[in-house]
Amino acid sequence: MRFFSDNTATACPEIMTALQEVNHGRARAYGDDEWTLRLDGALSAHFGTPVRAFAVTTGTAANSLALACLSPPYGAIFAHHEAHIAVDECGAPGFFSGGAQLELLAGAHGRLDAATVGAALAAHPRHLHSVQPAALSLTQATELGTAYRPAELAALCELAHHHGLKVHMDGARFANALAFLGCAPDEVTWRAGVDVLSFGATKNGALAAEAVVFFDPALVRDFELRRKRAGHLLSKSRYVAAQLLAYLESGVWRRNAERTNRLAQLIGAAAAAALLHPVEANEVFVRLGAARRQALRSSGFEFYDWGPEAAGDARFVVSWDQPEQDVHALCAALSSRAGS
Amino acid sequence: MRFFSDNTATACPEIMTALQEVNHGRARAYGDDEWTLRLDGALSAHFGTPVRAFAVTTGTAANSLALACLSPPYGAIFAHHEAHIAVDECGAPGFFSGGAQLELLAGAHGRLDAATVGAALAAHPRHLHSVQPAALSLTQATELGTAYRPAELAALCELAHHHGLKVHMDGARFANALAFLGCAPDEVTWRAGVDVLSFGATKNGALAAEAVVFFDPALVRDFELRRKRAGHLLSKSRYVAAQLLAYLESGVWRRNAERTNRLAQLIGAAAAAALLHPVEANEVFVRLGAARRQALRSSGFEFYDWGPEAAGDARFVVSWDQPEQDVHALCAALSSRAGS
Amino acid sequence: MRFFSDNTATACPEIMTALQEVNHGRARAYGDDEWTLRLDGALSAHFGTPVRAFAVTTGTAANSLALACLSPPYGAIFAHHEAHIAVDECGAPGFFSGGAQLELLAGAHGRLDAATVGAALAAHPRHLHSVQPAALSLTQATELGTAYRPAELAALCELAHHHGLKVHMDGARFANALAFLGCAPDEVTWRAGVDVLSFGATKNGALAAEAVVFFDPALVRDFELRRKRAGHLLSKSRYVAAQLLAYLESGVWRRNAERTNRLAQLIGAAAAAALLHPVEANEVFVRLGAARRQALRSSGFEFYDWGPEAAGDARFVVSWDQPEQDVHALCAALSSRAGS
Amino acid sequence: MRFFSDNTATACPEIMTALQEVNHGRARAYGDDEWTLRLDGALSAHFGTPVRAFAVTTGTAANSLALACLSPPYGAIFAHHEAHIAVDECGAPGFFSGGAQLELLAGAHGRLDAATVGAALAAHPRHLHSVQPAALSLTQATELGTAYRPAELAALCELAHHHGLKVHMDGARFANALAFLGCAPDEVTWRAGVDVLSFGATKNGALAAEAVVFFDPALVRDFELRRKRAGHLLSKSRYVAAQLLAYLESGVWRRNAERTNRLAQLIGAAAAAALLHPVEANEVFVRLGAARRQALRSSGFEFYDWGPEAAGDARFVVSWDQPEQDVHALCAALSSRAGS
Repeated sequence: MRFFSDNTATACPEIMTALQEVNHGRARAYGDDEWTLRLDGALSAHFGTPVRAFAVTTGTAANSLALACLSPPYGAIFAHHEAHIAVDECGAPGFFSGGAQLELLAGAHGRLDAATVGAALAAHPRHLHSVQPAALSLTQATELGTAYRPAELAALCELAHHHGLKVHMDGARFANALAFLGCAPDEVTWRAGVDVLSFGATKNGALAAEAVVFFDPALVRDFELRRKRAGHLLSKSRYVAAQLLAYLESGVWRRNAERTNRLAQLIGAAAAAALLHPVEANEVFVRLGAARRQALRSSGFEFYDWGPEAAGDARFVVSWDQPEQDVHALCAALSSRAGS
Repeated sequence: MRFFSDNTATACPEIMTALQEVNHGRARAYGDDEWTLRLDGALSAHFGTPVRAFAVTTGTAANSLALACLSPPYGAIFAHHEAHIAVDECGAPGFFSGGAQLELLAGAHGRLDAATVGAALAAHPRHLHSVQPAALSLTQATELGTAYRPAELAALCELAHHHGLKVHMDGARFANALAFLGCAPDEVTWRAGVDVLSFGATKNGALAAEAVVFFDPALVRDFELRRKRAGHLLSKSRYVAAQLLAYLESGVWRRNAERTNRLAQLIGAAAAAALLHPVEANEVFVRLGAARRQALRSSGFEFYDWGPEAAGDARFVVSWDQPEQDVHALCAALSSRAGS
Repeated sequence: MRFFSDNTATACPEIMTALQEVNHGRARAYGDDEWTLRLDGALSAHFGTPVRAFAVTTGTAANSLALACLSPPYGAIFAHHEAHIAVDECGAPGFFSGGAQLELLAGAHGRLDAATVGAALAAHPRHLHSVQPAALSLTQATELGTAYRPAELAALCELAHHHGLKVHMDGARFANALAFLGCAPDEVTWRAGVDVLSFGATKNGALAAEAVVFFDPALVRDFELRRKRAGHLLSKSRYVAAQLLAYLESGVWRRNAERTNRLAQLIGAAAAAALLHPVEANEVFVRLGAARRQALRSSGFEFYDWGPEAAGDARFVVSWDQPEQDVHALCAALSSRAGS
Repeated sequence: MRFFSDNTATACPEIMTALQEVNHGRARAYGDDEWTLRLDGALSAHFGTPVRAFAVTTGTAANSLALACLSPPYGAIFAHHEAHIAVDECGAPGFFSGGAQLELLAGAHGRLDAATVGAALAAHPRHLHSVQPAALSLTQATELGTAYRPAELAALCELAHHHGLKVHMDGARFANALAFLGCAPDEVTWRAGVDVLSFGATKNGALAAEAVVFFDPALVRDFELRRKRAGHLLSKSRYVAAQLLAYLESGVWRRNAERTNRLAQLIGAAAAAALLHPVEANEVFVRLGAARRQALRSSGFEFYDWGPEAAGDARFVVSWDQPEQDVHALCAALSSRAGS
């Protein structure tokens, strides 16, 4: 029973159907096809404001291309020290930006708070011996399965803007955050002050599709040139666009996120006494202890160890295609162990 | 009737079926799935020698990641001045390598010849004021629809190796070259001395799949780290691997290439008197003159103008899913015009 | 009375004389002159082991070129969060390396300790989603005017080597550390395990001269190409080499460092009750409080505020050409104020 | 008798005196000293228009920092294929810009002509698959010892501007061009349309000093941050500024250039029948043939072979401190040989 990651899942039927549906007739290459040309409109509708949106196939590409538009080579990008861009992308932001420096901050449960960010920005020098604060990158939902509230985001974005930074949101699990918060896409993005969003679909049911969504068209600048030279402009672009359109228009984004969130809540409830972080998306972090963790693994549950070995912490991620019985089995195992 | 590019085509049935077939069950992410793990074997079988092979989704990514493994930031990459890496990838080799410099050479019909390359390599300084010759990049089939013969390749590779360079082959239309030459994959790659191949499938029927094939495992070095930080490691890697496996194992690579080559030959025959380059793949370059070119376009044929406006040259590319009647119509139009 | 920085000083007479002495006759350009060719020998003699040494004109160039030889673009460079490379070089390590990521650690008085470094290295992932630990950069003397003892360095270097990292030492104030420790140059460099040293002379009396000293010749690799393309190979190289030779051979390195250290000790004694860090080089950090700091400044003392505004901390740096009476005046002011 | 390069020369007395004169008292570091602050004014006076000017120590740094302000990472920089930035800087423009691509053009005697540049710019694609034309770099005097006339420069600059490019001038031997043309500094720079000039002093008598001169202040943008992170901001900046001030204000720039030009004319006259290029600066290129070249070398003349070995071409460069008798000896040798 696999709880490694939502990346281990299949693509959902709506996505596969969409691929079949666009697979006829010739289409202009490199993004001039009718499906790609519909992306701006579809994402503008989703967010309730005119946006520019660009399709890529990976979250690392989405994040780094977005950040390269926000930060010069001598820029500083502020982020949580657990952020995907800091620990899981092999230095991609530095590569795409030409050397921007990450300034990593701490924050409970994977969230940055305004006090920490405000202090860091106030303390950061602006003289020419220093990298120049350029962007704040927030993750929604966070790497620890928590979600920023709209007011928290608004405070962070206001701070960032006040200090002259732009705000990027890594939304690899954006749908899960929305589903948990029960709010509309605009509330945790542009209305809160987010400038650019990496809008993830892959973890939530797509085959390989992410969108970079610019709420401020002035920031788009040279995005398309940067995407091309990074090899992220697909020649047969329709197949990525079609995934994004289906993801949005079929409602599968919400259905999948609601399901995985619901199942994660079950796991969270079963492990309530040992939870490391509130369960606000499709990830559950549990302090098991090394022995119980090993026992769980021996029982056929697959998951990642998390953090220092000695603590015996584990991460469980629910995928959109996770069999419900897997979750029930895990809950049973966690409950009994919690009582052991 | 669309003759713009083989990038305007659909994905062929074998590829779509493969996507469906792997779309069940959870799989390890980021390339540890069973299909991705089969790539080395499948491409080793194809080339008749042990290779290391890595899947990406675009030709630009394949070329640039390969070249970044062959050239240091202060390297010189020698290529034909019409090469895709020189004119169609928005500076990607410079980006991925950290600043390597292209040294562009002329050559009839898109092919470099040993005399030109030899002279350039002999003349290139090796002192520390100069970029250091690092790689020779050859395109097979070339951007002008011609194919290098095995002996030509062997001579070029020997030259390159003699001067300490590694050889990269851009094989975006590799299958077309093979089909034209009637030779086995090994004859125009490792047996001729090619070190790394960008093995293209997208233009010849895949949805979005290319492989970087290392014939010399020592060159792989940090490829995987470079791919990851460039955002080209797909989390759901199985869907790219599956395309490549189907492409190879179904024989679709050959069937599609043979068909498009055959149809290109028909066009070439119809335009024989006005051909700019021998037709040795699925592309046909014709000197129409501005007036006749416009007339052809008005008749419903879509294609790219090529080269200086005044010459009135045109490029016609046959796609794997090109209706045969399109080609016959084009032939008829070209014949009548040729006679006009 | 200026205590801003040792960068505000003049060049000392021995250096100026050396410039005059080499200013006759033509010499081969770009480092093939007799003085530059003597650098390896002079620094080998200084360190008591064969080294390769390269002259540059700034500490940022020395540090970043050294680090670019130790870290690939996807490398991680571990350093103290107060390190010059982290806060005072405008992201130079990221630029020169092609995107290496700094991993910044805390440590009392500007020094890293083995426990902190060991924990960070042990925790750092090595999978391909992460930047790869490549180098540990230590500063001697540190940015807070303290010096690592030989045993501390040996422990840190052993840790770094054990985890596969190379060790760089930023020795912008190397002479001050030596003078304080009373040890030989080898004890705090290669005998302790340092692989590459930025050997600074500018702050201690040179006009503009630093050497990058490789204790492991295998690491030199492409240093000279990287230096050239960064614009740091001087055409009239003799004038930098001459400074370094004079600095070493006249003994001015030691004389100046001993003098500035001695004067710093006087200041440290005068401010003993308010010292923020032990005085182990030519820098003194004092907690004055905002009011007393302002009063001191009004009395004609020039210095940098340090750290958060509210704390009222100040940094005093003694330059090689600092008039002794400046220091006595400062001591008097600090003593009286300490008693106020 | 050394005719290798003007880089083999000493620094001239006015420069050395200036270094001594500024070598007293403490000064603010990193360019806030009184001498550095005078640079803008001194160069504004020299050029007869308000400029921003920045000191660096090498021509490679000046050229590449200037170009990095003119070209994005995906830019194309057009230059003569003999340009220093193309063949003598180890790929520096690619490094500093983050990957800009050189587009190298031919032109008689090291000069580009408007027809060639115009054709290249007109033909260069602007779609997103291509690097984007960003800058034209011209060398004055050229690498082949010739000088652009003001009208030629004006035509080239107008072309460049018409196509949206900025114009950089590599003026490593700018004074020699001025002295030959007998025109004022403005005529071949901003009045002709040059946007940024690498103003060289090192080859013409300075120790190590070049200025990057912006005629359009809007282009300065982030120059200072780029210079700092490249390690090209000297802490003791006064010593570079002082060289530039002395170079300008003492008139040594003109005196040295007039002398070396005059001596080069003598050599040119002696080799008139075998000249490869007009002598319009301090360099003379002669077709000697391999045998006569060897004989000349055996007679004690030192110089660089130039171009393909077989042609037996040689380059002679006159330095500011070249003994007059060296030149007479060379003239005698060339004359007799020319007659042999």
